[in-house]
Amino acid sequence: MTENLTSISELGEFGLIRHLTKTIELRQPSTIKGVGDDAAIIQPPQGEQLVLSTDMLVEGVHFDMTYAPLRHLGYKSIIVNLSDICAMNVLPTQVTVSLAISSRFSLEAVEELYTGMRKACDWYGVDLVGGDTTSSVTGLVISVTAIGFAPPGKMVTRSGAREHDLVVVSGDLGGAYLGLQVLEREKEVFRSAPGNQPELSGYEYLLERQLKPEARKDVVELLDALGVVPTSMIDISDGLASELRHLCAQSMAGCDIYEEKIPVDPKAISAAAEFGLDHITCALNGGEDYELLFTIRQEDYDKVKGNPSLTVIGHITPLVSGCRLITRGGSIAELRAQGWDSFPGGDH
Amino acid sequence: MTENLTSISELGEFGLIRHLTKTIELRQPSTIKGVGDDAAIIQPPQGEQLVLSTDMLVEGVHFDMTYAPLRHLGYKSIIVNLSDICAMNVLPTQVTVSLAISSRFSLEAVEELYTGMRKACDWYGVDLVGGDTTSSVTGLVISVTAIGFAPPGKMVTRSGAREHDLVVVSGDLGGAYLGLQVLEREKEVFRSAPGNQPELSGYEYLLERQLKPEARKDVVELLDALGVVPTSMIDISDGLASELRHLCAQSMAGCDIYEEKIPVDPKAISAAAEFGLDHITCALNGGEDYELLFTIRQEDYDKVKGNPSLTVIGHITPLVSGCRLITRGGSIAELRAQGWDSFPGGDH
Repeated sequence: MTENLTSISELGEFGLIRHLTKTIELRQPSTIKGVGDDAAIIQPPQGEQLVLSTDMLVEGVHFDMTYAPLRHLGYKSIIVNLSDICAMNVLPTQVTVSLAISSRFSLEAVEELYTGMRKACDWYGVDLVGGDTTSSVTGLVISVTAIGFAPPGKMVTRSGAREHDLVVVSGDLGGAYLGLQVLEREKEVFRSAPGNQPELSGYEYLLERQLKPEARKDVVELLDALGVVPTSMIDISDGLASELRHLCAQSMAGCDIYEEKIPVDPKAISAAAEFGLDHITCALNGGEDYELLFTIRQEDYDKVKGNPSLTVIGHITPLVSGCRLITRGGSIAELRAQGWDSFPGGDH
Repeated sequence: MTENLTSISELGEFGLIRHLTKTIELRQPSTIKGVGDDAAIIQPPQGEQLVLSTDMLVEGVHFDMTYAPLRHLGYKSIIVNLSDICAMNVLPTQVTVSLAISSRFSLEAVEELYTGMRKACDWYGVDLVGGDTTSSVTGLVISVTAIGFAPPGKMVTRSGAREHDLVVVSGDLGGAYLGLQVLEREKEVFRSAPGNQPELSGYEYLLERQLKPEARKDVVELLDALGVVPTSMIDISDGLASELRHLCAQSMAGCDIYEEKIPVDPKAISAAAEFGLDHITCALNGGEDYELLFTIRQEDYDKVKGNPSLTVIGHITPLVSGCRLITRGGSIAELRAQGWDSFPGGDH
């Protein structure tokens, strides 16, 4: 197999940027000027406020190049940020992307990464309006900033949950973490016997949850269509338990969550069993599902009831009650945020 | 010497973020919500447009931890971004900061970095409204996004320079590059004889230009006070020659620049001689001065004439003339962009 790969240094810095950005399309009416100047220019819709969020993905911490295809990685790096904007109940409109790329990357590899980023931008109707491309002496680092606009009354923070509000989660949980377990296992197998092909069939759903997550823009649109403005909202990047604790802490409230209500896909349940893990623990602490966790007023219950994208998992209690998990057996346990890593990183 | 340093993992991710952000003050009336939610919320001033820029600084590429004190590095990482906003003729108002920190960093080291960042925010009246803090398996990476607002008529891009416009530069050039030469020399001396103290006295100005540059917010304010709206503008991060070529290319114009007009500080001239370098070459290709390069209409000449912060160095010519340097001797040379590195990175 002969490959003719182009080294980045052949193009030079500005050549690389021109090459990567030459076919970028702008769709948002608010984008006045995208890539190509000292800064992008954006026209805020009249009367609307700006939401702004940033995230950094680091090789060896947030992703492993041995099993994260570059295209998926590019896609995911955009999604992680769009999810933060969605978690304000806002639709994202623009992103900027900064990349630190080691010289071992070929132009073709950078293009793969960019293709994934642009695919995410296309799919979510978001404009890539600027960034920074630099060399790295070590690993790949991707930093994305996303913005969106909404009228003040529509934006939802983490701090508005009130006693008796219902706790709702979108989609299902734990899948991304179990997808990672599958990838880690196959990496180990490959290490001990490099000739073997990885056994990934049957795990497609979990792998997609890990490698190609989606931001729940559709849930923001759904809530708008249902006429529901949540009282508080957060996205689940670090696991349900951790995010529930953040939401409750900032709302100065507690919560009761029912184990039996936590949505876990059957494929995640069977994979958890296979790895000797409790699937509820995976859902509570796994993270990276990028689902939305939010609270609604009791009177909005009828609007969300029975919606396949939304599950009511509990309710908000007074602060003194703390965050509690009611198990299937009816026993009550404190909901603990047990990250799997000691210092993986997080928004602030 | 015994030092009691606190390891980052002792605090954990959220503890670190809380610790670093607990005393952040917000000053901008447009900041509705800063650090602490999925995204910051900002109220755009009525009728104004948003400018948005992002930059990434990577250890071993943009800075060397052996001689860049962390406090200065934090300061500079903010300045580099504010400079991009100033280069749109706009005053910056908010920044977000993403950090990837290796576990070899103590809490005290991260605090030093943050202290420098906050000092820059304080000095420029900018709010730190969010970010991401993560671990790194290798070096330190800093990504900053800055924003600002201005009425559409006040914003200046790179593409508005017209024939006969005057080319103006703020401050003086080449100093940051020569400051880097001094630091590199002392690093070599230290390597060969670690007991020696570095010889930095007499080079204070150049070292400050390299280690603690400033964004020319004052020039944006000065132009406003003088009633001058430049026809095009860019900041000098990569050297005068490279930036002039960008500005002319995007304005579809050429330029004639006079060597004798290029402002170089006497300390930079003598240091250049000491290193056997031509000081004009340092000014043209050195970079990192973060001065503003802009064009004004001829009728605005009287408004800028004699201002100690501003120097007219040439004028805009037709595209076919190209970018030219008129030497002291009167000979004409093509202005070439000769970066010192092959792929150092850059905005897009």
